[in-house]
Amino acid sequence: MNSVGKSWLLLTGLIVFYIIYLLFGALVFSTIERPVEEQLRRDMDALKQEFLNQSCVSAASLENFLVRVLTANKYGVSALRNSSVTSNWDLASSMFFANTLVTTVGYGHTTPLSDTGKVFSIVYALIGVPFTMLVLTACVQRIMYPLVIAPVCLLQRSGLEPRPATVVHFLLLLVLVVLCFFLMPAAVFSAVEVSWSFLDGLYFSFISLCTIGLGDFVPGMQPRQKYRPLYQVAVMVYLFVGLMMMYLLLRTFHKMSDLHGLTSFLQLPRCEDSDMEEEREPIVHEDSRTANNMTEKAASKPLDPGSQPSYNTINKG
Amino acid sequence: MNSVGKSWLLLTGLIVFYIIYLLFGALVFSTIERPVEEQLRRDMDALKQEFLNQSCVSAASLENFLVRVLTANKYGVSALRNSSVTSNWDLASSMFFANTLVTTVGYGHTTPLSDTGKVFSIVYALIGVPFTMLVLTACVQRIMYPLVIAPVCLLQRSGLEPRPATVVHFLLLLVLVVLCFFLMPAAVFSAVEVSWSFLDGLYFSFISLCTIGLGDFVPGMQPRQKYRPLYQVAVMVYLFVGLMMMYLLLRTFHKMSDLHGLTSFLQLPRCEDSDMEEEREPIVHEDSRTANNMTEKAASKPLDPGSQPSYNTINKG
Repeated sequence: MNSVGKSWLLLTGLIVFYIIYLLFGALVFSTIERPVEEQLRRDMDALKQEFLNQSCVSAASLENFLVRVLTANKYGVSALRNSSVTSNWDLASSMFFANTLVTTVGYGHTTPLSDTGKVFSIVYALIGVPFTMLVLTACVQRIMYPLVIAPVCLLQRSGLEPRPATVVHFLLLLVLVVLCFFLMPAAVFSAVEVSWSFLDGLYFSFISLCTIGLGDFVPGMQPRQKYRPLYQVAVMVYLFVGLMMMYLLLRTFHKMSDLHGLTSFLQLPRCEDSDMEEEREPIVHEDSRTANNMTEKAASKPLDPGSQPSYNTINKG
Repeated sequence: MNSVGKSWLLLTGLIVFYIIYLLFGALVFSTIERPVEEQLRRDMDALKQEFLNQSCVSAASLENFLVRVLTANKYGVSALRNSSVTSNWDLASSMFFANTLVTTVGYGHTTPLSDTGKVFSIVYALIGVPFTMLVLTACVQRIMYPLVIAPVCLLQRSGLEPRPATVVHFLLLLVLVVLCFFLMPAAVFSAVEVSWSFLDGLYFSFISLCTIGLGDFVPGMQPRQKYRPLYQVAVMVYLFVGLMMMYLLLRTFHKMSDLHGLTSFLQLPRCEDSDMEEEREPIVHEDSRTANNMTEKAASKPLDPGSQPSYNTINKG
């Protein structure tokens, strides 16, 4: 079989395995969660029936009442008495929302209510998401030296071979990140948030720093929390630094994989010559005449992948 | 001022501007949303008061009832009569949840209720998120030729200069993506989902394909929707292909910026020599003796950035 056929087979295999992985997840989630959900549903029905029996409210008017309560709740407005003191859109909370938007975490604990708010969210994220990536990249560039380059060098000086040194360094960095950005924050959250267990804190940290952001646990949402704005700012800083460390970890892993040949092992064999050229040094020192020549040459030839003027055959200015 | 000082100044400027951007967002969101929220809150209070007046329920027992209703609602269990038919954890819904987890969209419309579910979510995402990235990358590699390389080549043959050709191609691709993955789906969603406007559909598409996933709009959540599992699978396919196209667009933009020198303009000046080496061709053809020599040399020298054996001075196997 030729390499093109092989690469398509590999891709198909990957996609099939991806679907199997999703199905497997679905089966496990369904098995674990369905009984708990059914119990909660039965409890809810019983609670409603009991409430109706004890009061002189008609089922229809209760239903009508609940529809409106739940709709308002969807937009972050709770019908509960003690929660109506603080707004979801004071300055600190709005900034927290803006932050979850641009980092793509998006808890959705509060969501824009008005159409203007929705349009602004789109425009704000359109600029904000790439901007956040830029700031994160710039910060990671700065901490690469003290946290990656220098320690690897130190390990090598202490007698380790270059390759094992990078593995030991990556494992140390991993332990540091897990400790400082998952376990310690989890302990803090479980202490500060009354209803959170340690597992809840850990689950929140993980779901946040992977930018999944389910929003079932969001810090600073309890009524009458002391220093709430300050706490929200602290969580924002935690999220930003945490994302930075996740990015650093990913980059370090990528560099380590490169060294150990893991990247080329995981990468699919490429079937287009022009795609292969991406890995090569781009032709940056040739003058623009060469680029034009390339184009003319390509134009005169039939469609054959090797002769395509790819992005990289065009010289930079 | 030397280049190190300049680069730190630039980074500080970026971070300050980032904070200003967040503050600006916070101010706008607060201005837009707060009046709407206050109105909703007043309506809610009036509704509750009216409900209490018309019935013989005590305020305390209603409060108690609502606490439990809203807690169950947080976990995706609605107290409403017509919504209690379908489960959030049937196979299709569970797969939809698994999909939002591994793509880091994370709507959070349903969240794991049990501790086992939370632990499984963490483990599942830990493997699934990088796996999804791998599959997406592999797919994007495949569509690079027909959607990027070939059209650019075609544009060049039709007489365009290489650089304008890439810009025209990027704009065409952008229009195609906006049309096929934002505007058209928005029209479909606003037709299929009863309560969604066109803007809601567009807002959903954008929030989803940026992986923000606020979860205030999730397709297939209405009671008694026909062919619900099929619809959910269709949405999953849309999300996957959409993310693929977003990734393609990002990569094409990056390549175009490279060509136009925008990348080096946006990138911070680097202050470490070892970081500079990342851009150079890594030393792959030297034997391991050279790498060892490098290490020994580095060990004998004082800590000077130029002499650090970076990741790239270590040869690949």
